[in-house]
Amino acid sequence: MDERMKKQLAFALEIDKEKNIFRQTHLSGHGRNENDAEHAWHMAVMAYLLKEYANEEIDIARTMVMCLIHDIVEIDAGDTYAYDEEGLKTQKAREEAAKERIFSLLPEDQKQEMISLFDEFEAYASPEARFAHAMDNLQPLLLNTSNDGGDWKEHSVSAEHVYGRQTKTKCGSRKLFEVSDELIHEQIRKGNLPDRKK
Amino acid sequence: MDERMKKQLAFALEIDKEKNIFRQTHLSGHGRNENDAEHAWHMAVMAYLLKEYANEEIDIARTMVMCLIHDIVEIDAGDTYAYDEEGLKTQKAREEAAKERIFSLLPEDQKQEMISLFDEFEAYASPEARFAHAMDNLQPLLLNTSNDGGDWKEHSVSAEHVYGRQTKTKCGSRKLFEVSDELIHEQIRKGNLPDRKK
Repeated sequence: MDERMKKQLAFALEIDKEKNIFRQTHLSGHGRNENDAEHAWHMAVMAYLLKEYANEEIDIARTMVMCLIHDIVEIDAGDTYAYDEEGLKTQKAREEAAKERIFSLLPEDQKQEMISLFDEFEAYASPEARFAHAMDNLQPLLLNTSNDGGDWKEHSVSAEHVYGRQTKTKCGSRKLFEVSDELIHEQIRKGNLPDRKK
Repeated sequence: MDERMKKQLAFALEIDKEKNIFRQTHLSGHGRNENDAEHAWHMAVMAYLLKEYANEEIDIARTMVMCLIHDIVEIDAGDTYAYDEEGLKTQKAREEAAKERIFSLLPEDQKQEMISLFDEFEAYASPEARFAHAMDNLQPLLLNTSNDGGDWKEHSVSAEHVYGRQTKTKCGSRKLFEVSDELIHEQIRKGNLPDRKK
């Protein structure tokens, strides 16, 4: 086996650990916490099926790869809940160190490509990145609304917080933001999400 | 929300159940059993990173979608272990019924597209399908060899069985079959895999 192949397989084995990084979101049917690999899989399938709603033309392969790899850094950095204000302050530094260590397992050209896709995603720097972010928002919203907003209740999250995040879906898909808005309003009406933090 | 969007989101929510379908393969580090969504995610990332080894030119987006959706039918049909001879006899019928029910949640055009991709995969009917199968073989081999062949030991699987399946990797990638062969031989040498079933 040559060096290039060895590096590629070492990376492939390393990312298996993403299946052990658990998120705050719960699976539908009031299931267990979801992990990062499952979340990424779900986002990638949704990206493919909902691509007609992207604001701009997107390269679907690049979009799916971004969805698939955007949380690999959490193998080292851990998951930071979208509404965890303390954790969010150190998230960037933790993820930068992880990015360097993990993607360095790959051959240099693929390391650079993966870091470039990861950075593009983080910076909302392309139509693909903006649409992938729309998936990153819509996927947990779909699960959480199917569970009567259980994840919001557990963390005392308010509609104000939820909109703070979900509004960014507009950058990737105005249409999917409208849908998200409809889902959120339904949860407010049902009493599953307070307008403001108590 | 219009009917098309409702159907797309209903499908997106339904496939969440794939995260509850567990396989015989265990995660690296002698971890728990892997589920189908994690397996599909892993395959899709590997397809992207190993695409240079495909025997024929492949459309990577189509290949990744095949990897991502190839086990959705198991939501109804359950996982059939690659070396379970009894289960394999009824697998086709169970999966056909599941395919019809689950993909029918989508708008008609997307239902047809997904079924067509699923069938193409099952039939090894394109370069993309053949390469996706190579991932379906290599991904669990990578995990299992990292765990000293624990999954083979648990099911008393022999090298003869393993080659019966892994040889098909050649159809998608001769290079990755060579690598698989090397990994399998190493396991035989280490005493983790007997030549023939006792």
